[in-house]
Amino acid sequence: MTTGKKKHRTEEEYKSLINRLNRIEGQVRGVRKMVETDVYCVDILTQVSAIQSALNAFNKELLSNHIKTCVADGIRADNDEVIDELVKTIQKLMK
Amino acid sequence: MTTGKKKHRTEEEYKSLINRLNRIEGQVRGVRKMVETDVYCVDILTQVSAIQSALNAFNKELLSNHIKTCVADGIRADNDEVIDELVKTIQKLMK
Amino acid sequence: MTTGKKKHRTEEEYKSLINRLNRIEGQVRGVRKMVETDVYCVDILTQVSAIQSALNAFNKELLSNHIKTCVADGIRADNDEVIDELVKTIQKLMK
Amino acid sequence: MTTGKKKHRTEEEYKSLINRLNRIEGQVRGVRKMVETDVYCVDILTQVSAIQSALNAFNKELLSNHIKTCVADGIRADNDEVIDELVKTIQKLMK
Repeated sequence: MTTGKKKHRTEEEYKSLINRLNRIEGQVRGVRKMVETDVYCVDILTQVSAIQSALNAFNKELLSNHIKTCVADGIRADNDEVIDELVKTIQKLMK
Repeated sequence: MTTGKKKHRTEEEYKSLINRLNRIEGQVRGVRKMVETDVYCVDILTQVSAIQSALNAFNKELLSNHIKTCVADGIRADNDEVIDELVKTIQKLMK
Repeated sequence: MTTGKKKHRTEEEYKSLINRLNRIEGQVRGVRKMVETDVYCVDILTQVSAIQSALNAFNKELLSNHIKTCVADGIRADNDEVIDELVKTIQKLMK
Repeated sequence: MTTGKKKHRTEEEYKSLINRLNRIEGQVRGVRKMVETDVYCVDILTQVSAIQSALNAFNKELLSNHIKTCVADGIRADNDEVIDELVKTIQKLMK
């Protein structure tokens, strides 16, 4: 199911993505702590929504960079399979 | 922004929620490893979608239990503010 | 698949829902006109997003009223199947 | 807010998009009929979800064609503003 391909990212992009993931991991641990300490359902639901927004922002950043680099470079190099791949990827994200 | 309220959960529900969160935390760490090892964008996007589905399933379970316990009990006890609270919560989840 | 049940709505709710649907139908016809006049894809996508938001607002209003009337009344009358029905409905809306 | 640009579509694409919109308009009128005949909330919510899926399928088709034509052609013609436009469009759709 995975492509097995690699992608080199700039240091700026790398740091930004890793920082986002570190924050998200902290948020997930925060929700576990809420469950462990019997926090009220509605407060937990709100916090999980925040994690979903953070993951969505991560995906937006990754997808934007992907289009600006892999997709644009692929099309310029007549490697048109990047187009079909992008279409399939977006269709999954829009489910 | 938080209610400050508490909610006692059954051991079965507690374990199920904690297990889901542990798996989700593992998935987030898995995505960080993917970024660290230069994995291709599309493969990372797919994996993040899986985390979003897992968080959604967590929220569905929590909200279902909330309705079956807190909301139903509140209405039976003429504590009708649980109704407005539920409506507001669902409206946020349907954003 | 349908319940076959009926629900009497107040005139205020009825009018609000019908007005929303009339506007939405107009928006759908507007998008068809855009396609017929060769409007650029991005502009059409933006307009379709507006329809989706309008449908979402319609669903929020309907669901909120449902909870405040059918669900609350059902629970007060010990008709607890409304709880399972609500849970299933929300789970579908959170897909 | 609109680009003012035009896009010529193939007859096949045109017909497919118009057919989708005609069906969606019929579905919206169907929901209005449901409200007019006091149909139960849950049944209406289910039907509105079907419209949202149909609009999403319309958007997927339009966006896929957009990427395969406007975006790919733009990049090949060194008209790189299509890239930023696509990124912004997708970010709005992933809100």
